Amino acid sequence: MPSPKTGLWLIGARGGVATTAAVGLAAVRRGLTRPTALVTELPMFAGCGLTGWPDLVLGGHDIRQAPAAETAEALAASNAIDRDLVDATLPDLDRYDGEVRPGVLHRSGSTIEGLADEGFSIAADSPRGQIEQVKRDLRDFQARHKLERVVVMLVASTEPATPTELLPERWREFDATLENHSTCLARASTLYAIAALELAQPFINFTPSLGSDCPALRELATERGAVHMGRDGKTGETLLKSVLAPMFARRNLEVMSWVGHNIFGNMDGQVLDDPVNKAAKVRSKDHLLGEILGYDPQTLVSIEYIRSLGDWKTAWDHVHFRGFLGTPMTLQLTWQGCDSALAAPLVLDLARLAARSAERGESGELTHLASFFKSPQGGPTADFVKQYDLLESWAAGASL
Amino acid sequence: MPSPKTGLWLIGARGGVATTAAVGLAAVRRGLTRPTALVTELPMFAGCGLTGWPDLVLGGHDIRQAPAAETAEALAASNAIDRDLVDATLPDLDRYDGEVRPGVLHRSGSTIEGLADEGFSIAADSPRGQIEQVKRDLRDFQARHKLERVVVMLVASTEPATPTELLPERWREFDATLENHSTCLARASTLYAIAALELAQPFINFTPSLGSDCPALRELATERGAVHMGRDGKTGETLLKSVLAPMFARRNLEVMSWVGHNIFGNMDGQVLDDPVNKAAKVRSKDHLLGEILGYDPQTLVSIEYIRSLGDWKTAWDHVHFRGFLGTPMTLQLTWQGCDSALAAPLVLDLARLAARSAERGESGELTHLASFFKSPQGGPTADFVKQYDLLESWAAGASL
Amino acid sequence: MPSPKTGLWLIGARGGVATTAAVGLAAVRRGLTRPTALVTELPMFAGCGLTGWPDLVLGGHDIRQAPAAETAEALAASNAIDRDLVDATLPDLDRYDGEVRPGVLHRSGSTIEGLADEGFSIAADSPRGQIEQVKRDLRDFQARHKLERVVVMLVASTEPATPTELLPERWREFDATLENHSTCLARASTLYAIAALELAQPFINFTPSLGSDCPALRELATERGAVHMGRDGKTGETLLKSVLAPMFARRNLEVMSWVGHNIFGNMDGQVLDDPVNKAAKVRSKDHLLGEILGYDPQTLVSIEYIRSLGDWKTAWDHVHFRGFLGTPMTLQLTWQGCDSALAAPLVLDLARLAARSAERGESGELTHLASFFKSPQGGPTADFVKQYDLLESWAAGASL
Amino acid sequence: MPSPKTGLWLIGARGGVATTAAVGLAAVRRGLTRPTALVTELPMFAGCGLTGWPDLVLGGHDIRQAPAAETAEALAASNAIDRDLVDATLPDLDRYDGEVRPGVLHRSGSTIEGLADEGFSIAADSPRGQIEQVKRDLRDFQARHKLERVVVMLVASTEPATPTELLPERWREFDATLENHSTCLARASTLYAIAALELAQPFINFTPSLGSDCPALRELATERGAVHMGRDGKTGETLLKSVLAPMFARRNLEVMSWVGHNIFGNMDGQVLDDPVNKAAKVRSKDHLLGEILGYDPQTLVSIEYIRSLGDWKTAWDHVHFRGFLGTPMTLQLTWQGCDSALAAPLVLDLARLAARSAERGESGELTHLASFFKSPQGGPTADFVKQYDLLESWAAGASL
Repeated sequence: MPSPKTGLWLIGARGGVATTAAVGLAAVRRGLTRPTALVTELPMFAGCGLTGWPDLVLGGHDIRQAPAAETAEALAASNAIDRDLVDATLPDLDRYDGEVRPGVLHRSGSTIEGLADEGFSIAADSPRGQIEQVKRDLRDFQARHKLERVVVMLVASTEPATPTELLPERWREFDATLENHSTCLARASTLYAIAALELAQPFINFTPSLGSDCPALRELATERGAVHMGRDGKTGETLLKSVLAPMFARRNLEVMSWVGHNIFGNMDGQVLDDPVNKAAKVRSKDHLLGEILGYDPQTLVSIEYIRSLGDWKTAWDHVHFRGFLGTPMTLQLTWQGCDSALAAPLVLDLARLAARSAERGESGELTHLASFFKSPQGGPTADFVKQYDLLESWAAGASL
Repeated sequence: MPSPKTGLWLIGARGGVATTAAVGLAAVRRGLTRPTALVTELPMFAGCGLTGWPDLVLGGHDIRQAPAAETAEALAASNAIDRDLVDATLPDLDRYDGEVRPGVLHRSGSTIEGLADEGFSIAADSPRGQIEQVKRDLRDFQARHKLERVVVMLVASTEPATPTELLPERWREFDATLENHSTCLARASTLYAIAALELAQPFINFTPSLGSDCPALRELATERGAVHMGRDGKTGETLLKSVLAPMFARRNLEVMSWVGHNIFGNMDGQVLDDPVNKAAKVRSKDHLLGEILGYDPQTLVSIEYIRSLGDWKTAWDHVHFRGFLGTPMTLQLTWQGCDSALAAPLVLDLARLAARSAERGESGELTHLASFFKSPQGGPTADFVKQYDLLESWAAGASL
Repeated sequence: MPSPKTGLWLIGARGGVATTAAVGLAAVRRGLTRPTALVTELPMFAGCGLTGWPDLVLGGHDIRQAPAAETAEALAASNAIDRDLVDATLPDLDRYDGEVRPGVLHRSGSTIEGLADEGFSIAADSPRGQIEQVKRDLRDFQARHKLERVVVMLVASTEPATPTELLPERWREFDATLENHSTCLARASTLYAIAALELAQPFINFTPSLGSDCPALRELATERGAVHMGRDGKTGETLLKSVLAPMFARRNLEVMSWVGHNIFGNMDGQVLDDPVNKAAKVRSKDHLLGEILGYDPQTLVSIEYIRSLGDWKTAWDHVHFRGFLGTPMTLQLTWQGCDSALAAPLVLDLARLAARSAERGESGELTHLASFFKSPQGGPTADFVKQYDLLESWAAGASL
Repeated sequence: MPSPKTGLWLIGARGGVATTAAVGLAAVRRGLTRPTALVTELPMFAGCGLTGWPDLVLGGHDIRQAPAAETAEALAASNAIDRDLVDATLPDLDRYDGEVRPGVLHRSGSTIEGLADEGFSIAADSPRGQIEQVKRDLRDFQARHKLERVVVMLVASTEPATPTELLPERWREFDATLENHSTCLARASTLYAIAALELAQPFINFTPSLGSDCPALRELATERGAVHMGRDGKTGETLLKSVLAPMFARRNLEVMSWVGHNIFGNMDGQVLDDPVNKAAKVRSKDHLLGEILGYDPQTLVSIEYIRSLGDWKTAWDHVHFRGFLGTPMTLQLTWQGCDSALAAPLVLDLARLAARSAERGESGELTHLASFFKSPQGGPTADFVKQYDLLESWAAGASL
């Protein structure tokens, strides 16, 4: 049985994560690589009727014009992707670039706005006007490729934190603020989410930005019967935390402090070098210990932009804990991972999973996808294994 | 309702683990310390009717005469136990020392035999004779303190590996070999197990030595309706492995190699400095990756005796794994834990849990205790969280 | 030949460094410890005529009243000093406490001022009045113990950075500002330096605070023929940097970035948790790479206060460098040291060395002591080994 | 002034180090890379009249036939050399391959002999016969390229340790053993050294194998006026040790134990996986602490072959030391370096330096090159900086 044709529309289409996803999808399709790191290639998903790789079509928005091939070149130069794979998939990347449209800037902060290419963003009198243009882009994409549905996936740089306490809680009132740039306090990530949800298309937020994570958009999603989920892909240090913190809890060891220091040098890092953007990110990485342990050890998460590291993220974690009779002990971790190569397969996984959920008629927040996120919407457990159990149950239920 | 009075008989009674358990039990009873690191103090065990700390009585065997207080002193000197706690519990340690009897030497290897004090071991014409003396010691202990039951717990130094392929598989034939020192290929750890099981007392093996982990003793345990479990307490590096390896599996990341280098300087380390003893230990630490991952990455576990570290074990792990598109990445861990302080609370937990299982009429291998062991008998999963799920289910079932 | 009797006057007398120095001096004198970590106990100083340990007398200023024994107790509790040594030297600590006088607060910043005990600081109409009281305290101490000289050593918490560009460059003009609290922009560390230098006593600044490191005080020192030196004792991470950076230079390896993350939890850390105090510290740790390498790699030094660590400082350094053909490589360091135990022996060394320099008639900045400091005054090389060569030459010259 | 044309004859010509040297020399000559990691490109050598890169001609011996380009390809695949550099220098590598001749196998051990290609080694009735063929190869090379001199450099895999106590101490008697394979206990590395020294050409041993490091060959070198030096290039972990151990000594900190664990996966590692080869290597890495510190802390150096790491060597060092008042502290290092890229530039440096020494009429062991070696011949200091001082003095003296 052929799988339904599915679009994956990447917001931040020319960034490292989206480009790696594009190279990777092409390499998988061409049989140039094994499906390592793709969760949905594990046996438990075999009978779930997920979109086949040949039936996934990519497009997206960006605010920069430099082609994805340039990003891919830079990733190869920093050993994040094998150069041979980049060379072999250049035609696919070019085709992908042809599907990229100018994106939305709205309260995106001066650092992100500084990255935008002159004239390469949606000009409109109001946020509502921007949303309508995004919707036109999505409908055109869907029609052009005869797609059953289009998953909208946010993989753009982290925005400054949105002042959620000032956003209207009901969709009707929220909607009214969109008529005017000055009355709309939501940022671009949320405008994209509105566009997707109003079209009843799946929306997935792989970043710490707000996206659909507020009452008004939850209401909108429910009303339209759309699925959505976020926030902030769990790729490295936080993944380890959500696996190791439960170990301390299960052994009744007392975590006294947990310090995490992250250094990396890609564009994401450059954006986080701006304190207003960083604040949003740090918050997303730092809340789960209390949830898992049931008490609040001293925690500290720092993120620093170190140019020379390029796409390689190094995280050093120092866990100070107390054992029997109060004896203090230490666990240190050093994680050296390539950010894009960690994120990209999850993006492809989420596209397949969200599309299948939509096909099955689910709606609202997809809490069974919690294991993919640092701050999963819908408030499920912070314990990675318990989150993964939800995914396993879903897979069992979705099997044909 | 008062809990039943339970004995905990420690083989290796004057070693670091047993001594820390003795200090710890006394400190908990006297209210000098919080119950950190005691798994059985977690809320889920509250209604399970476990032996209360005041109802647990300690005794044991050893082959050395230096009092436990000396061991405690050395542990305090290396900052493994707070000196104030040692000082405050000296009377308890003295009483405990009065309950220690000369132990069994039988094919224990020259390194362990070299540690024994002249004349401080059970002299007998045959292994059967040694077993009968152990049984007398256990019965005396039980009678002296009016104990419902006595959990026999092996925390002695690691023996050389037993040639299991040469042991009779049926208990009747095995039993026959015990009449003669030369025909009995089992080592001391197994003789202790026989003594316990013949008395239908619980036997727990916290070491990599063979103990009860062979077909003949499984038959004996079933026949007598006794509970038993082992091997090798999971306290540090292997605990981390059994938590982290499933993470790699769940994310479909390919582990290429996993190197673990352990250094420490206590008596356990000194014994492992002998290659014949070390072989048994390394095997116990190194099998679980294949079980969890479903393929066999290159693994290497080394253990080295570094005097200056005393009871502090430092483990460095280097995990080399492949992510999306084959990109190689690295996770390094450094674990600095105090061996005795990690092991001792689990020993106290296991005593309570095994006693309660016996009281409930369970028999055979206690596979729900798998999360406590590096090489759990009865062959359950190697995934720590799945092992822990078994414990949670048991706790739910055992609640009164 | 008996050595001259020398005073060591510690500013910050009841802090961790001073207290460890006091315990240590007493322990060395009583023969309770080996002279580990005392540089001046190396053979090359044997014939230099340094003050013998029995001839060194301690006193000092502080702004807190809690006795040094309390600090010592806390250090023992965090395993920074062996408890037995603290117990054995309590009488010496009590005697020392009797020699501590209320200290100076002047533009010390709100965090330090918040630590001061009510009424336990020198009240005076002007900085000049405070200086004169310090001088009286020093003269009384010298007379009371019949001391040849008194080395004044700053080991207090780090002040906010002094706006040196606003300080008069000539001593005469600087002196004039001292008549009035509002006209004097110098902070307490500099007032102490003035007191010492006006008495022609040696002044050593073991902290990042300004102390005597400005043109006007250099002029004062020269005029009075006094010796002085600073700043910021080189005890851990920076020591490693000043040893390793020259290695990269000598091998023509290109350092691309050097990230240092420091965590610790003592009072020094608490003071540095205030951004104004931290800025002064970070600057002191971060300038030497450019000096040694001849180019400026990206550097980042962060310092964070983590309560649970107490006096134990953990520093993680990540050095990213380029080798032949541009291949990027990495060196990571983790340093786990006890801050007070690293600093205290150098404080005792510096007291002996400065006293001997004064006795020999040297004056001005003691650049041959550069190896002891992160930011050595007088601008000598930043390469530790070259700095140490200066010390070796001095020792050869000072031999009797 | 044109520099004299110099040959560099690499024993192990198709291995990782030699191949990287060949790629690197070509890349430097073609202006494709900066001279990072080449010590002789530091300013202090500017006036020393070293051979210019265009005047250095490469050739060598090997026992394997696979072309150097294959090795280069593998190094690029493991990110040890940039693929673009390999592609750009393929013509140079081909030319280099044309200068490689079959090498010597003699008591090389079964692991090395197992790597040899059938028929691709010098067949001769005696070691003397093998030596004469090597000499013919060297003379042909010299004549073919009109070279002033040919530096013979050993970069082959580590041989089993030679039983030096059985070798004749006088050259005349040693020479006599060469007539017969069975009487000659020296191994191939020493036969190469004899060939070079008999031709009065410089011989440099970059490996732990014996080479010229025995009394008889010292006598031969002196007699012929030849220069020679070795053993075992100091590229990574030992470099760090020779820099850091003096720091502990200078600060009078007591090193209690120093553990080094090395993992890597190139052919060198494969050879060292054989215990007889490993023993020679470990000895070379492990002697210097005692020399630097003046006492012998417990040390442990382990080296393990981990396939997945390829040419990347990861070394973890754990230094346990005692500070003031006996407080134990820890320094840990993780070094992640590319073995070939660390060694190759030193090989090129040594070729230039040895050639210039020969030109200046020096003879015997070149102790001023000690900083390049783990076990420098001629017994100079083990302190890296003091070794480097010797090199600086030589450079000053050699300036024109």
